[in-house]
Amino acid sequence: MTENRLGASLRGRRVLITQAQDFMGPALCAAFSAHEAVVIADSGDLSHAERPQRLIAAAGHVDVLIINLACVAPSTRATDVTDDEWREVFARLVQPLPRLCRAVLPQMLERKAGKIILMGSASALRGIKRASTYSAARGAQLAYVRALGIEVAPFNVQVNAIAQNFVDNATYFPPEVQALEKFQQRLAAEVPAQRLGTPEEDAMLALFLACDEVRFMVGQAIPFAGGWVT
Amino acid sequence: MTENRLGASLRGRRVLITQAQDFMGPALCAAFSAHEAVVIADSGDLSHAERPQRLIAAAGHVDVLIINLACVAPSTRATDVTDDEWREVFARLVQPLPRLCRAVLPQMLERKAGKIILMGSASALRGIKRASTYSAARGAQLAYVRALGIEVAPFNVQVNAIAQNFVDNATYFPPEVQALEKFQQRLAAEVPAQRLGTPEEDAMLALFLACDEVRFMVGQAIPFAGGWVT
Amino acid sequence: MTENRLGASLRGRRVLITQAQDFMGPALCAAFSAHEAVVIADSGDLSHAERPQRLIAAAGHVDVLIINLACVAPSTRATDVTDDEWREVFARLVQPLPRLCRAVLPQMLERKAGKIILMGSASALRGIKRASTYSAARGAQLAYVRALGIEVAPFNVQVNAIAQNFVDNATYFPPEVQALEKFQQRLAAEVPAQRLGTPEEDAMLALFLACDEVRFMVGQAIPFAGGWVT
Amino acid sequence: MTENRLGASLRGRRVLITQAQDFMGPALCAAFSAHEAVVIADSGDLSHAERPQRLIAAAGHVDVLIINLACVAPSTRATDVTDDEWREVFARLVQPLPRLCRAVLPQMLERKAGKIILMGSASALRGIKRASTYSAARGAQLAYVRALGIEVAPFNVQVNAIAQNFVDNATYFPPEVQALEKFQQRLAAEVPAQRLGTPEEDAMLALFLACDEVRFMVGQAIPFAGGWVT
Repeated sequence: MTENRLGASLRGRRVLITQAQDFMGPALCAAFSAHEAVVIADSGDLSHAERPQRLIAAAGHVDVLIINLACVAPSTRATDVTDDEWREVFARLVQPLPRLCRAVLPQMLERKAGKIILMGSASALRGIKRASTYSAARGAQLAYVRALGIEVAPFNVQVNAIAQNFVDNATYFPPEVQALEKFQQRLAAEVPAQRLGTPEEDAMLALFLACDEVRFMVGQAIPFAGGWVT
Repeated sequence: MTENRLGASLRGRRVLITQAQDFMGPALCAAFSAHEAVVIADSGDLSHAERPQRLIAAAGHVDVLIINLACVAPSTRATDVTDDEWREVFARLVQPLPRLCRAVLPQMLERKAGKIILMGSASALRGIKRASTYSAARGAQLAYVRALGIEVAPFNVQVNAIAQNFVDNATYFPPEVQALEKFQQRLAAEVPAQRLGTPEEDAMLALFLACDEVRFMVGQAIPFAGGWVT
Repeated sequence: MTENRLGASLRGRRVLITQAQDFMGPALCAAFSAHEAVVIADSGDLSHAERPQRLIAAAGHVDVLIINLACVAPSTRATDVTDDEWREVFARLVQPLPRLCRAVLPQMLERKAGKIILMGSASALRGIKRASTYSAARGAQLAYVRALGIEVAPFNVQVNAIAQNFVDNATYFPPEVQALEKFQQRLAAEVPAQRLGTPEEDAMLALFLACDEVRFMVGQAIPFAGGWVT
Repeated sequence: MTENRLGASLRGRRVLITQAQDFMGPALCAAFSAHEAVVIADSGDLSHAERPQRLIAAAGHVDVLIINLACVAPSTRATDVTDDEWREVFARLVQPLPRLCRAVLPQMLERKAGKIILMGSASALRGIKRASTYSAARGAQLAYVRALGIEVAPFNVQVNAIAQNFVDNATYFPPEVQALEKFQQRLAAEVPAQRLGTPEEDAMLALFLACDEVRFMVGQAIPFAGGWVT
């Protein structure tokens, strides 16, 4: 009976998690480890052109690639967005994406099996003020996943994204922000669930998408934002 | 370690599944049973006004309500849709929905815990020819879930829908249809995954949504259609 | 030069507008009249089964059918929604829809030209508390439009919907509500445009969709809600 | 009566159209000219960092900015996408966007009036094989428009996008492609309207969005694709 349990197929799977110390990284590592996957946790800087290829080469066999890319989201009026801000955010969030996929896909396509899961953002689906750079980068990610997901679906490789927002993490919602009454009011007003999500809940969704049995969802961005987008 | 496994929280949960012999019913019953939930499988006809209330009353404590409603989808040109067709489809797919939720929500709201999962259809999200009645009914379902999901989220009750299409089942894709070359060509042309999904895969998504830990997705319709909608 | 102006093709077009005294009716009648269309303004009650067919028969040649259906949106918790509320809202908002389309489509399909525009609601796209009945009905409308739009597109008949919210009208936003400070705060918090839309602006979108030249948008629900949904 | 006609408000408006000789440029120039707007048609290469700012400075007063950016969409498997392809496509389609908006917004925000319309692509909304680079770039555009549209809406500046596909143009659908039977079959199978849209129809939508009266749609991407996405 345990073998057809949700998550049982993760045992022994080789799961590569990027930026493993940032954003959803720690919760992802813990969740996959708890399911007896072989977690390959990388915390290198992927904004250098050669790094993604090298990372995949070093990882060897990868069953599941979790693309967890994060950077501080600049809060800048569109009139004040500099070329540097744009370049920096795209270098961190967007450019590693095609490089990682280009590097890992050949082995997945050859085996006719594999999963790529992007830890994306709901800010690409619903506009936020003073977040045009960040939203654009996150929008590039989701559209890339849509296209790639369609392209590789016939080869039994599933590519999907989690489009999250309002998930507790020190980068976007540091304790001092959470302590503000104004922040709590915003949460109550904007997030139907009336709270931040936890990284553990979020990791559950990534786990689910990584299961062998979950092969009929492809090219999708799944909102995970307490009802902020639906 | 097994306790924080995906799906472990389902053990002992009382899960009521409607139309348990139709559509996704058998796969749902098997999947929840395999995860040691207490499955209450109902196969009554819910189109009678009093039945939903009576079903919930008889079921007693319900942790998870799986609303699995199905009927043959008429293939009718909009110019030929009769009042009878419309009435029949809405009686089966739509009217039981508010009655079931009205009956089960008080106990969930009081306990501040509960899950309602609708087995809905992607035909509400992407238009299909000669399916206007069915699509409209499925659209009513998804919009109901969106509204209700937002309404009860603050009480820790999560309402979501699976918006599926191209999942193997005898009602919509009988063997004689699947045997047609034309059907296989349509599948190859329209469904990026190049195949029908299995009810077992679909049940996995319902299982996932039913887990205790999955509480930050609310009011959502999750496409499950091999990439046909994303 | 005036002949290829936007809106010029509406001159002499026979435009049937339902519930012409309610909701967007007056603004629609004024806008189409200003563009020299022949406006057939009906203010009959369409909830009787025979009325839609009779209305179309009496109208004769219809180039553009504007389905403007409205009723007071009940504000009811899902636990308190009665069968009567559900029946009443669906009788007003949903059931006239297939009857009107069934009646008017034969002449449009025969001429291989025609427009059907539904004045729908964005409440079908984004959940609102205590609006489950109304949202479900509006969801049925949009999904119907999606399916029908795809079905009749090859015959050069365009069916689309406007998914509006926060448009000024006495039914949904009476002056005494607008006068409340709380309402103005809600507007500022929820509607990026920071105001209600006007029925005249809304009618412009219907005008646009009714133009001869606008034939490549089909089966769509166009949000018109000041950025509340995008 | 002519003054409240749709499109009448465009008379004398200063409309800046980029890449005016490419993609939708010629149809846009013709349509706005026909409505007596003052068309400022630019055909410079905007991929150089300084060009957008200079273009806006030279144009002076701009009521409406039409961001029409186009490049050949590479058809490349994700495994074969090079850094050069990515850089080139983003340089043409994405990087000019924040630079143009940064340059033109100050005058619009000061006047509390203005329109920015992006000629975007539906490929950002629905995945296409071997188009991951292009889709990603188009996705960045739409998410940027969503965020910026929300940000500047309170200042009566409306930013929207047209998300088009299957619109006739020599760049994406050259005559030799259209002549192929395979292409015509694909059109019949994938596009409910069963044909390509015309640039003139497309320009009508841009005209509409540019009208003074159309101020309640913000941050939106409007599909214009014959029903391919809805």
